[in-house]
Amino acid sequence: MSPSASKEKFINQFKELVDELVGILASYKMPQEAIDWFVKNLNYNTPGGKLNRGLSVIDTYCILKGVTPDSLSDEEYKKVAILGWSIELLQAYFLVADDIMDKSKTRRGQKCWYLVDGVGDIAINDSFMLEAAIYALLRKHFRGESYYVDLLDLFHEVTFQTELGQLLDLVTADEEHVDLSKFSLEKHSFIVRFKTAYYSFYLPVALAMYMSGVSNEADLKQVKDILIPLGEYFQIQDDYLDCFGTPEQIGKIGTDIKDNKCSWVINQALIHANEEQRKDLDINYGRKDDKAEQRCKEIFNDLKIQQIYQEYEEEAVGKIREQIEKVDESRGLKKDVLTSFLQKVYKRSK
Amino acid sequence: MSPSASKEKFINQFKELVDELVGILASYKMPQEAIDWFVKNLNYNTPGGKLNRGLSVIDTYCILKGVTPDSLSDEEYKKVAILGWSIELLQAYFLVADDIMDKSKTRRGQKCWYLVDGVGDIAINDSFMLEAAIYALLRKHFRGESYYVDLLDLFHEVTFQTELGQLLDLVTADEEHVDLSKFSLEKHSFIVRFKTAYYSFYLPVALAMYMSGVSNEADLKQVKDILIPLGEYFQIQDDYLDCFGTPEQIGKIGTDIKDNKCSWVINQALIHANEEQRKDLDINYGRKDDKAEQRCKEIFNDLKIQQIYQEYEEEAVGKIREQIEKVDESRGLKKDVLTSFLQKVYKRSK
Repeated sequence: MSPSASKEKFINQFKELVDELVGILASYKMPQEAIDWFVKNLNYNTPGGKLNRGLSVIDTYCILKGVTPDSLSDEEYKKVAILGWSIELLQAYFLVADDIMDKSKTRRGQKCWYLVDGVGDIAINDSFMLEAAIYALLRKHFRGESYYVDLLDLFHEVTFQTELGQLLDLVTADEEHVDLSKFSLEKHSFIVRFKTAYYSFYLPVALAMYMSGVSNEADLKQVKDILIPLGEYFQIQDDYLDCFGTPEQIGKIGTDIKDNKCSWVINQALIHANEEQRKDLDINYGRKDDKAEQRCKEIFNDLKIQQIYQEYEEEAVGKIREQIEKVDESRGLKKDVLTSFLQKVYKRSK
Repeated sequence: MSPSASKEKFINQFKELVDELVGILASYKMPQEAIDWFVKNLNYNTPGGKLNRGLSVIDTYCILKGVTPDSLSDEEYKKVAILGWSIELLQAYFLVADDIMDKSKTRRGQKCWYLVDGVGDIAINDSFMLEAAIYALLRKHFRGESYYVDLLDLFHEVTFQTELGQLLDLVTADEEHVDLSKFSLEKHSFIVRFKTAYYSFYLPVALAMYMSGVSNEADLKQVKDILIPLGEYFQIQDDYLDCFGTPEQIGKIGTDIKDNKCSWVINQALIHANEEQRKDLDINYGRKDDKAEQRCKEIFNDLKIQQIYQEYEEEAVGKIREQIEKVDESRGLKKDVLTSFLQKVYKRSK
């Protein structure tokens, strides 16, 4: 199946899930206006992204089972797709709330949900309901499985970890009070691992592992020990591209400098800056001002951040490759699961 | 134990739980500033209310076991108290968010969390973390129990129901666009059952039932069929007192009329009003204006809402008493569980 056909099939599955959720509300005799609102919330906020996280559950499951996606029965496809959509719902839950907290304007080429006419702060309850939809779907389709409770524990743990990452990010990078002394590379590592790596990299693989029965604790640990650093590398690349990528490359204009983000780039700059450069960064970082942004970029260039990034990337990818090489496949885990993730990320910057 | 001693013992347990949650964050090597923030969030938002919901888990458990609270071992007390605090955390999660959505100013005699200096919209992520704390604690203390998965399913279902009630409330009673034609007694019943009765009345009893082993599905249904109408009666009484109670009686000044609340009182008035009274209500309800509020109250008096309430109350309580009388105790359920809830509510208005 081509990537676009895979994506289309996956999106079609979502329509069925919306119908099922409507069925649950209807069974409660929920008035129609609230059902309509919930449907709009689900459709506006859940599909529409790249769906990489959700699709990777299906890819991972197929690698572990040693089959192609086409050969899955409709029933099996639906079940694994529900796990995929559960991650997309989890992300939707976070993003609807993040956009309010960050005062963002647009998301995936449309107005943020809280800015849609008539929504406003109701978006907070809507984000809650996106999360609740995960557990309603898991219960309906997985309640009878021996690994049902593992799925619930996994979602709870990863949700908590993501929220912890978000908390640390929020208390570190206050847009109103710029204070670079709050930043550190260690904190950056914690934020990106917790806020991004667990739910974007570890969660899809762990879900597919539970469903395929390759879920020995030692194997879950093997993939976690590789996917969390891989997720960190992904986010560092993202931070790098926000500053040094062209708009054509990254599909948007980077705003991390103006937004006072605790990015890998500024953290590297803080490590290497001399006294004068540091003073300049203190004055210019996190200001909504083109000239100040330009001054930061000049300092980044003087500090050769691009070269530091290239060195970091080669080293990080090298280490991850080595780790993958050493993976123990004796209980059914496949190195390919990890290689395919690495390829998707490493290619991205080339 | 006196009620105040029970409450004190229960509150002391919470301090231990905060320490345990800190332990989880410390095991992640979470930076101290984020740990401090989480502790402040937990302590500011979780205790401080009447704690009726949490305490009633302990009371119910003791009735089902046929023991007094004093005779519980420390270990047993702690476990049942954790279930109680889980409801209080669930409520904290809802209230922190509700206060943002309702633009409230104070809660339990202190500033709303989102209005505390430096908090603002971070309160949204904080509310998420209050919910996540529930599952972290349940996992730590109940993972090995046969009913662990039932606890998770119950929390998920009740959470979803409460959010559905909140959604219907938000789309029905828009403070900015008053439209009484959106109200109906049927919708009111749905809102109060979903937004309040499930988590405040059914949840504490169901949790105690699982832990005590009196958790046959037929028994869970018996208590649900009584506690949901009882919760509805509780909320109708609350609506009534908001309008007709003295500030001394209810400990606050009622604001439902000015806030355009879809209250039982306005719904009864809409049923009984003639054309002219209805027109007057359309003009005066939901306005932040003392005179308009006074005009609504006059109409309520003309319509004898107080008498309608007395009749409703006698009938509702009579029906609930009858239902309790018929409860089948053969599998270990005790009528006393339900009687003690009814007494707490019925006494309140006397």
